[in-house]
Amino acid sequence: MAKIAILGYGTVGSGVFEVLTMNADSAAVNAGEPVEIKYVLDLRDFPGDPAEDKIVHDIEVILADPEVSVVVETMGGNEPAHTFVKRALEAGKSVCTSNKNLVEAYGSELLQIAKEKKVRFLFEAAVGGGIPIIRSIKDALTADKIDFITGILNGTCNYILTKMSQEGMEFEDALKQAQDNGFAERDPAADIEGHDSCRKIAILASLITEKNVDFEDITTIGISNISASDFAYAKELGMKVKLLSSASYKDGKLRAITAPFLVSGDNRLFNVDDVINGVWIHGNAVGDLVFQGAGAGKLPTASAVSSDVVDAVKNNDTVYKLLWGDEKISPEDVGDYIFRYFIRVKDADKAKEVFGNLTPVEAAGISGEHGFITDVMSEREFNEKSGAVDIINMIRITPDTKIN
Amino acid sequence: MAKIAILGYGTVGSGVFEVLTMNADSAAVNAGEPVEIKYVLDLRDFPGDPAEDKIVHDIEVILADPEVSVVVETMGGNEPAHTFVKRALEAGKSVCTSNKNLVEAYGSELLQIAKEKKVRFLFEAAVGGGIPIIRSIKDALTADKIDFITGILNGTCNYILTKMSQEGMEFEDALKQAQDNGFAERDPAADIEGHDSCRKIAILASLITEKNVDFEDITTIGISNISASDFAYAKELGMKVKLLSSASYKDGKLRAITAPFLVSGDNRLFNVDDVINGVWIHGNAVGDLVFQGAGAGKLPTASAVSSDVVDAVKNNDTVYKLLWGDEKISPEDVGDYIFRYFIRVKDADKAKEVFGNLTPVEAAGISGEHGFITDVMSEREFNEKSGAVDIINMIRITPDTKIN
Repeated sequence: MAKIAILGYGTVGSGVFEVLTMNADSAAVNAGEPVEIKYVLDLRDFPGDPAEDKIVHDIEVILADPEVSVVVETMGGNEPAHTFVKRALEAGKSVCTSNKNLVEAYGSELLQIAKEKKVRFLFEAAVGGGIPIIRSIKDALTADKIDFITGILNGTCNYILTKMSQEGMEFEDALKQAQDNGFAERDPAADIEGHDSCRKIAILASLITEKNVDFEDITTIGISNISASDFAYAKELGMKVKLLSSASYKDGKLRAITAPFLVSGDNRLFNVDDVINGVWIHGNAVGDLVFQGAGAGKLPTASAVSSDVVDAVKNNDTVYKLLWGDEKISPEDVGDYIFRYFIRVKDADKAKEVFGNLTPVEAAGISGEHGFITDVMSEREFNEKSGAVDIINMIRITPDTKIN
Repeated sequence: MAKIAILGYGTVGSGVFEVLTMNADSAAVNAGEPVEIKYVLDLRDFPGDPAEDKIVHDIEVILADPEVSVVVETMGGNEPAHTFVKRALEAGKSVCTSNKNLVEAYGSELLQIAKEKKVRFLFEAAVGGGIPIIRSIKDALTADKIDFITGILNGTCNYILTKMSQEGMEFEDALKQAQDNGFAERDPAADIEGHDSCRKIAILASLITEKNVDFEDITTIGISNISASDFAYAKELGMKVKLLSSASYKDGKLRAITAPFLVSGDNRLFNVDDVINGVWIHGNAVGDLVFQGAGAGKLPTASAVSSDVVDAVKNNDTVYKLLWGDEKISPEDVGDYIFRYFIRVKDADKAKEVFGNLTPVEAAGISGEHGFITDVMSEREFNEKSGAVDIINMIRITPDTKIN
């Protein structure tokens, strides 16, 4: 009988309680022993709730109990999550978390402590919700070298962009609908400005490089500048606008970016719509793999956390393999990345003069401006040229062959 | 240093050699020690080949060598693969295989021997090629109950059906092109008659039920009766014809079928085209997950086998968890499964008289016959009714909610 504690009885924490209760038999078979939830830490009480008699208000109760071998952190945010997790690891308890901020900011430190203590620090739910992407990369594709990952990693943005694409909505209206339907926070900045997606690609980049990637080093552009007009052009092109987070790793060099991209119908993520997440990875042996599933939501996220709990229980005595160290790797200068660019300009002649060859794009119902697709060029070259042109909006176009 | 032997130096076997050489560093890190290929068993010699000095012609050399801890079986077919694998397991060596016939026919026996000998019998490559579907089900979704799997599991059929869909080809022409391009065998029966797909869904059904599912108990219909005319109607409906292999498992009852289905644009496998495989699974916590990747091919298949080798080396000392026992489970009678059916008939009046409500489907360029979609009904009811109607062809339509 393995005993665990859940820190934070919000959406994900209560989901973990539900999944480990509902699927107690599966978890027990796979873990090799039953998994009992001994404590749930929360500031609140939950009278009448199934977790009622597990609730404690003091972390010290959990940290001091030698019976607790695994701690589930589902509080979110940096503090007190970081302190609690660190102390749990130091107390020799494995930790499973859904907290991407924590993993991104303190991953290398916490992994190092876990290694020293011979326990596990697991975070399948921190990227892609229920999609077993971390386990696929680290436990399944063990004889591959992953050289490319690109993903739709934020369900809120994908929902908004899908609404804009399918219903011609403006950004603000789609955001409001997402908020009304519970798919976006009242303060949506972390999602719509791309920071959430960027943290997730930083985690995935850390996994494939086995080095510490700081999300603040990754160029990040959100979706709040995408308009219904952009989608009118996209439709004309048979494309969609998707917020993609990409990382490529070759010859020891990392490239990474989070930005809206125009995605064509033959892109493997083209049909990943609504709140669904999708991850496309390329390995030097396995080739292309695509994973799709719920990137958020109570039970899918809890499923991923619960599978970490099973893993932590099952492997509690095995020596821990560090996933990434504290050696830092910074992405190459984004100025070197090569794309084609869709641009909307007021002055077509000026744009042609500056950019040379431009492919015009017309969109129904749009007037007083001109849409073009540039030739392939580096971001540096694009930025140099675009300074001389009055650009209404620019959207990168997914390269035919990953990030060049 | 773990030492392994590869049985059969064909496409997959030489791929494993290549992957474990090319990615020796990744494999060593993940396995916890370097993996050395000590022997390659083949009847032939390979002068000048990188494996030249590893070649042996006698299985006894491998079985008698206590240094060999893992045996890779990439010969295919039932014999001598079955005898060699059984003897390797009995000799205390883990076995990793890409051989779906072997796994489907002898899985429960070989898993039992592996358990007794505390070694591993692994077969990630037997289903979905490079897609880590078995590992996702058994090692990742450990706190879920998988109640539904449907997949496009045969790249040859998918290639043929894609050509027919995109280019309006007839079956025979698409098959010939697949053969010319190396995507279909000269004797294509196992692929086009659905037996290969059926073996794979039998394996997946065994995994989710943890019981022994015999592929011969699963209703299997191939694609050789699908014609360009069927695709003309499909196009009109915004659908494609895909060979799907499905299993659902609820309340201890298994339903399973391999057959061509009309698939609509909102189906998660609609865009899985060409030789790509796709697997859609549903868990009671994680919800829907979709995996796509190369279902065959030298390196993708070898990637999956090689990841099994890493797993076998890494976990060689752990007690083995049996994946399914010898208790048998047979699918429910297919007569109880409920679908809508697309039918083509000569006599529209007779069809209406027998089936009652029918939705007509017209297709450009098709005359002298009539296309209809029936109401939802069981296969039994459909078969009873269709006996009185001269049906040119029938294709099931994917139900909106899995197999009912």
